[in-house]
Amino acid sequence: MKTLGQMALFLALEEEEKVPELMAEVEGRGYRALRGKVGSMNMEKVVAAVETAAKRQGLVTGGYREEHALYHAVLEALNGVCRGQLALGDVLRTVGLTFSVVRGPRFPDEKSDGAWLAVVLYGTIGAPIKGFEHEVIGLGLNHL
Amino acid sequence: MKTLGQMALFLALEEEEKVPELMAEVEGRGYRALRGKVGSMNMEKVVAAVETAAKRQGLVTGGYREEHALYHAVLEALNGVCRGQLALGDVLRTVGLTFSVVRGPRFPDEKSDGAWLAVVLYGTIGAPIKGFEHEVIGLGLNHL
Amino acid sequence: MKTLGQMALFLALEEEEKVPELMAEVEGRGYRALRGKVGSMNMEKVVAAVETAAKRQGLVTGGYREEHALYHAVLEALNGVCRGQLALGDVLRTVGLTFSVVRGPRFPDEKSDGAWLAVVLYGTIGAPIKGFEHEVIGLGLNHL
Amino acid sequence: MKTLGQMALFLALEEEEKVPELMAEVEGRGYRALRGKVGSMNMEKVVAAVETAAKRQGLVTGGYREEHALYHAVLEALNGVCRGQLALGDVLRTVGLTFSVVRGPRFPDEKSDGAWLAVVLYGTIGAPIKGFEHEVIGLGLNHL
Amino acid sequence: MKTLGQMALFLALEEEEKVPELMAEVEGRGYRALRGKVGSMNMEKVVAAVETAAKRQGLVTGGYREEHALYHAVLEALNGVCRGQLALGDVLRTVGLTFSVVRGPRFPDEKSDGAWLAVVLYGTIGAPIKGFEHEVIGLGLNHL
Amino acid sequence: MKTLGQMALFLALEEEEKVPELMAEVEGRGYRALRGKVGSMNMEKVVAAVETAAKRQGLVTGGYREEHALYHAVLEALNGVCRGQLALGDVLRTVGLTFSVVRGPRFPDEKSDGAWLAVVLYGTIGAPIKGFEHEVIGLGLNHL
Repeated sequence: MKTLGQMALFLALEEEEKVPELMAEVEGRGYRALRGKVGSMNMEKVVAAVETAAKRQGLVTGGYREEHALYHAVLEALNGVCRGQLALGDVLRTVGLTFSVVRGPRFPDEKSDGAWLAVVLYGTIGAPIKGFEHEVIGLGLNHL
Repeated sequence: MKTLGQMALFLALEEEEKVPELMAEVEGRGYRALRGKVGSMNMEKVVAAVETAAKRQGLVTGGYREEHALYHAVLEALNGVCRGQLALGDVLRTVGLTFSVVRGPRFPDEKSDGAWLAVVLYGTIGAPIKGFEHEVIGLGLNHL
Repeated sequence: MKTLGQMALFLALEEEEKVPELMAEVEGRGYRALRGKVGSMNMEKVVAAVETAAKRQGLVTGGYREEHALYHAVLEALNGVCRGQLALGDVLRTVGLTFSVVRGPRFPDEKSDGAWLAVVLYGTIGAPIKGFEHEVIGLGLNHL
Repeated sequence: MKTLGQMALFLALEEEEKVPELMAEVEGRGYRALRGKVGSMNMEKVVAAVETAAKRQGLVTGGYREEHALYHAVLEALNGVCRGQLALGDVLRTVGLTFSVVRGPRFPDEKSDGAWLAVVLYGTIGAPIKGFEHEVIGLGLNHL
Repeated sequence: MKTLGQMALFLALEEEEKVPELMAEVEGRGYRALRGKVGSMNMEKVVAAVETAAKRQGLVTGGYREEHALYHAVLEALNGVCRGQLALGDVLRTVGLTFSVVRGPRFPDEKSDGAWLAVVLYGTIGAPIKGFEHEVIGLGLNHL
Repeated sequence: MKTLGQMALFLALEEEEKVPELMAEVEGRGYRALRGKVGSMNMEKVVAAVETAAKRQGLVTGGYREEHALYHAVLEALNGVCRGQLALGDVLRTVGLTFSVVRGPRFPDEKSDGAWLAVVLYGTIGAPIKGFEHEVIGLGLNHL
């Protein structure tokens, strides 16, 4: 994991039991990070789940500037999930996602780069029928 | 790596030296896979690079059916890269991407699932100035 | 009617009384076909109506592979109907559509082409006021 | 204010107390105009608010032709507000907008240009939290 | 053919030899119509081909109002052809299209409806390899 | 002019002779601002013109963080100009634009709000024929 994006990607992709080790590595390099889960046919619930987790765990401050940065990172990640049209239930599909948020410079050794946010959404999208789904991923990055 | 998508994601994300080992694991489970690189401001060159690699290495047959499946998987992956509008040079940005293509069932143990294709594009997008760029990823899946 | 797409287009476009004759011709060439109707401000109901009809009448099997192919064909057809943004009630418009689904090769004489699906949505879009509407059409094709 | 678009833009942008003077100037040149307000997380309410105001104040006739022209002008203005995806509540955001509609030729001195409509939406977009918002604007023009 | 849209659709869909008869029927009802062909990887050439044909054959006057109406009808039809992103060569695909333009009321018996334009684009889209293509259709309607 | 967005909007909208006075007012409140012009069928030239002006006049530093903020503000403004699809020459249209960039807090009295960027693009879009064009506007805001 040599970059901000990779940290967020591996945190969302790896299995549950590897998360503590990954998290320790990420935080050891001076990054802040979290991992969570959300499943819904309502896209706004996906946005809300990531925003709430990031605020509660202190990855963004309570002000509007950082909320604005986070919001756009989440929307960009949703583009990878939706691939063409930001819509879930409106086009009769649902998602089951693991998400990660990581805060820090784009590269561990470039502190002068300032703070950036990476948001990853990884999981499945499909019809509201068990097993009728396939994998999707989205990554959004923004400066803080 | 428990799924088709994860195989493609890790193949594109991991460092060069881990690729042979990953490839062996993927092929050991009965999957076909490849990894390549492309950088361009012309989006059609990204499409062409993935299609050419997949045909040359036999991941898709020479016919139209499989080309159609692959093409749409590439476009879906490009949505994750472009996040909102499929355009590179037209909006003054360029990409440097590692791509992977994997062919097989969605899950290693479900042979009855038939063949699917996963395409991952991972790398950087940004202005045509060195270092003015950040990470992006896209994943497209399609049935063959 | 020399192609898969034309069969689906004429089936959706022609008047009710010509449908049995068209259907006979289409089926006589080895194709499977259906025609139905749906009207709604909820786009997911359009998707559901086409999927339900196709499953009930056996144009697609009950598995995910064919459902995936059908789903994307429906979404592509919706792009022709919505022309720019997949949204109905959210932008205060409603549709009244006749739809058709046809299954078979792209051309009647090319059995080696395998099975494809064509979905046509044809009818009107407009404000929720009688007569405040105009015609729209959408065609989606996908390999099975 | 030398053009149709500028009349609509200044009418929406200027403070309340300047509106009567602006309106007098616009109407003095033979244009019809209105200004209103709407706030919502439901995009269809924004569309409905502009359409209702334009019909009530006689800027469009009650028929479908002019309603069609107005509808597309509103959608085009919404593209400026939404910047990429026509969605409000679905992506957890809300708007507070002042809108204007102006009817007349593109330029005051070119009566031969016939009637056009300009729709402006100006205000704020943001999270459903007070102050967590920034300005947006959209302008849609269409021939009548 | 009971509507403006159907006239344009059948004119574009039917075989060459049926065109004179269709054209006679359409013109007999007081409509103006044309049919043409265009093939290209450059989307602007598709737009230009339809606009040039419509102007030359007098379906639109030389002024901007009618050009504006036609232009938007062509763009709407292109949405049906492109299904999600208005791009051809940029995503490595090419089209071979028959197009039609019809001018008149939405219904033959409603002269009070005024003039509308219907534009149909029908043909194939695909890779720049012979036979690697499938059918597409797009319909755009606009008031004049 | 009570807000960052209004400063950018009036700077782009007002006539040439009023610009020095507006600029003085804007700078008197502690904001940095510029106004420029660009006309092209190539969208990347619009992006480049705004970026070059902002860098030359010191509204953004030479680093990537601020360039990233500016780039997204320009793309958001282009959405208002293009209204649905970021494309100019590809869909046979050209723009003639006055642009403005303003740097400062969202409101003059809230210094704690930190620095934001507002980009406005205002002018005409249309066919490459003189007079075949109408007004458009776009506003993009981003935190620095």
